[in-house]
Amino acid sequence: MELQNHNDDVARLDYDIEHIHQLANRLLPFYSQITQDNTLPENPLLNAQLQMLIGILHELHPADVAAVLENLPPKERVLVWKVAIPEEDGDVLLEVSDSVRESLIESMNTEELVAAVEDMDSDDLADLAEVLPENVVAEVLKDRDEEERAEFQAALSYADDQVGAVMDFEIVSIRADVSCEVVLRYLRRFDSLPNHTDKIFVVDEHDVLQGVLPIRKLLIADPDEEVANVMARDVVKFRPEDDVAEAAQAFERYDLVTAPVVDENKKLIGRLTVDEMVDVIREESETDMLNMAGLNEEEDLFAPVWDSVKNRWVWLAVNLVTAFVASRVIGAFESSIAQIVALAALMPIVAGIGGNSGNQTITMIVRAMANAQISTTQAMRLLKKELGVALVNGALWGSVMGVISWLLYGNLGIGLVMVAAMTLNLLLAALLGVLIPVTMDKLGRDPALGSSVLITAVTDSGGFLIFLGLATLFLL
Amino acid sequence: MELQNHNDDVARLDYDIEHIHQLANRLLPFYSQITQDNTLPENPLLNAQLQMLIGILHELHPADVAAVLENLPPKERVLVWKVAIPEEDGDVLLEVSDSVRESLIESMNTEELVAAVEDMDSDDLADLAEVLPENVVAEVLKDRDEEERAEFQAALSYADDQVGAVMDFEIVSIRADVSCEVVLRYLRRFDSLPNHTDKIFVVDEHDVLQGVLPIRKLLIADPDEEVANVMARDVVKFRPEDDVAEAAQAFERYDLVTAPVVDENKKLIGRLTVDEMVDVIREESETDMLNMAGLNEEEDLFAPVWDSVKNRWVWLAVNLVTAFVASRVIGAFESSIAQIVALAALMPIVAGIGGNSGNQTITMIVRAMANAQISTTQAMRLLKKELGVALVNGALWGSVMGVISWLLYGNLGIGLVMVAAMTLNLLLAALLGVLIPVTMDKLGRDPALGSSVLITAVTDSGGFLIFLGLATLFLL
Repeated sequence: MELQNHNDDVARLDYDIEHIHQLANRLLPFYSQITQDNTLPENPLLNAQLQMLIGILHELHPADVAAVLENLPPKERVLVWKVAIPEEDGDVLLEVSDSVRESLIESMNTEELVAAVEDMDSDDLADLAEVLPENVVAEVLKDRDEEERAEFQAALSYADDQVGAVMDFEIVSIRADVSCEVVLRYLRRFDSLPNHTDKIFVVDEHDVLQGVLPIRKLLIADPDEEVANVMARDVVKFRPEDDVAEAAQAFERYDLVTAPVVDENKKLIGRLTVDEMVDVIREESETDMLNMAGLNEEEDLFAPVWDSVKNRWVWLAVNLVTAFVASRVIGAFESSIAQIVALAALMPIVAGIGGNSGNQTITMIVRAMANAQISTTQAMRLLKKELGVALVNGALWGSVMGVISWLLYGNLGIGLVMVAAMTLNLLLAALLGVLIPVTMDKLGRDPALGSSVLITAVTDSGGFLIFLGLATLFLL
Repeated sequence: MELQNHNDDVARLDYDIEHIHQLANRLLPFYSQITQDNTLPENPLLNAQLQMLIGILHELHPADVAAVLENLPPKERVLVWKVAIPEEDGDVLLEVSDSVRESLIESMNTEELVAAVEDMDSDDLADLAEVLPENVVAEVLKDRDEEERAEFQAALSYADDQVGAVMDFEIVSIRADVSCEVVLRYLRRFDSLPNHTDKIFVVDEHDVLQGVLPIRKLLIADPDEEVANVMARDVVKFRPEDDVAEAAQAFERYDLVTAPVVDENKKLIGRLTVDEMVDVIREESETDMLNMAGLNEEEDLFAPVWDSVKNRWVWLAVNLVTAFVASRVIGAFESSIAQIVALAALMPIVAGIGGNSGNQTITMIVRAMANAQISTTQAMRLLKKELGVALVNGALWGSVMGVISWLLYGNLGIGLVMVAAMTLNLLLAALLGVLIPVTMDKLGRDPALGSSVLITAVTDSGGFLIFLGLATLFLL
């Protein structure tokens, strides 16, 4: 890896992706030959291109190879994957998104898969276990010792959103009654220390956590000082059953780099590292965004059309049902519309501003909920405030549209109905914009889930009902 | 700080917030007395409550005090702030969001502000400089030495989204030609090492960066080994002008804890730490989410109604204009609607499914763009794929709604127009769902900005035009 300067590096990665893309495109006609036999027709130009592709890939960090693969369409992706560096295959598999990972694993045979994952830490292997063929996992586990197999099973036994699923087992631990000098000598015996080691865990003879010795303190401590006098005893620690999103929040809040994971007897069983937590934070925010828009899950950008249809159909169907309800609301007022056709033209304005304003409210609340709980008292306060905002906006924008409608249709009544309907629909949007996510949360559901679709449903049907209802009452 | 177990801790924080909220509420009648003179009427119960409030606050980590303040309404917030621990005031100010920070600073007098920020690092002081009164900044800078004032000015000279604005100056650097033993002895002379120190920067006599010495390597290295033989020379480094979001992506991609910042001559001038980058990642995702919904910026959850109105009015106004355009589109077809009133009831279905589907597409693309650039070739591919998805969904859901409309109104023509209009509007949604963010990006604008409002505008007006146009052509 040659990262001379980050600026160059970012530009270079874009350039590399484009370059890899072009090379892969040119080699695509020989896809089956390259991916199956790793050979090419005797053609100097083609072979030079293949060598160049391999050359670029060799210079990239596994995380960059992963980024390249994410940004390639399926066939090019497999072609590039097949010529990528075999010894880094495992690292790349760990970095790519779930959907891309599946497509890569599908393209590999048993032998290649075993080679890619056989040197992996047991926690990483567990991450891949559910997408790997069973015989590959069995083959790799065969060569592991008892302890590693136990770690693998432990990691497997937790749900994806639990701390146990993301912890690793690369623990360096010491006793409290030794001197710092002894610790330094002990560390020197390691071939390498685990990534992100910013603290040594201090345990008793039963592996029960006593505290942590930050490396920052170890380095400046008097060598003769006992660990017990240097270590921190108040430790942010986690249980494997803890929610991983809450752990990530704790990392963010307390600026942690690593933290111990302990079992119910406070026995040290693993650790969390900030790089995993950063991924969790990124994924949480993205999931909220996707969920609000009614996308079921992370979708491969270049997924086949049919996969995308399946990922999106649920919320489209929900939307269709709610749109049908709105349509029936209008249907109920067909005779009013027949008498004043202007109503048909004005009603989407009432529905639209309600939807927009409701989306603003619900986004605010969902975002706030991602960072902290909202208590009932607070929900009431928020509701009051949002209703206030709705009232001001209703009076303001309602009046603007009221005057415009009055001038446009030369009918003061229509203008007044517009003001009233817009204000009422904004109030409805504020009410449901607070109540929908708060209720979802109380029911233990993700408050972001389809919230945008739901609030729009309410403000559409509600807006049509309010506007057409008022018009029927006062204008006919 | 007493963090016995994270699980308890999270539950306790929720409990504390609720408890603080209740206490603050009860003390609220004496708001002016407490906030101005720090006194209370002679009432044992009230005084006990105040002591309890102070006691809880004293046990909390500054980041937790910040979380408590974020979750309190304005008046309670100031009351709690006034009784919070003065020596931690500065840390809390750095942790809270911009809007809350402003409200806290407003409640403090010059003396209190100086006390809160006088011990701050110069980069942190620069972060607060734009919201602090000038005389406070001047007062604090008076006691700083030349170097610190230069650091303060340097930090101030960069925009919020530049690396220079988030870097700090807590650098530990060494020369390459000394032994590891010497480095360890040198480190031992420090009173404390900077937070997150995972590597020592290696520089030459002109402070030009030569490499980095990871602490992990230093700890296991032979003490007699020269730093030059242990250090890493290929270093991910940044320039102060670099985009902070790209730096955060590099931290995520390469699993960094700290990284050096160098000037145009590769002279070491500062460092970035992962805790700042985690905040950047969180903020970036949140900004995308808020921008998509048409919220201008981070909004204090309990902001006064008027502040919220100001934060949201721009996109509501945009929405109103686009809704008005959609309304005029319908207005142009008033005679068609007068003849077939069913059109008024069906048209929102066409517009609605287009909006929903367009939002799904645009969310996908905005999310992908947050993680990497999308090249023109890729944009074309994405467009083709999204059009394919639209075609499938149009045929599928269009047929469903077509059949329902046919049965409902006993008119096959209406059913066929529904199928055609829904399919065409879904295609339009796919087209603009890709083109809007890609164009925004090409123009150097944030692709998320108001994207949800814009796509809905297109699918509303477009949907009405397509549906009513087709109906007028074929049904009248």
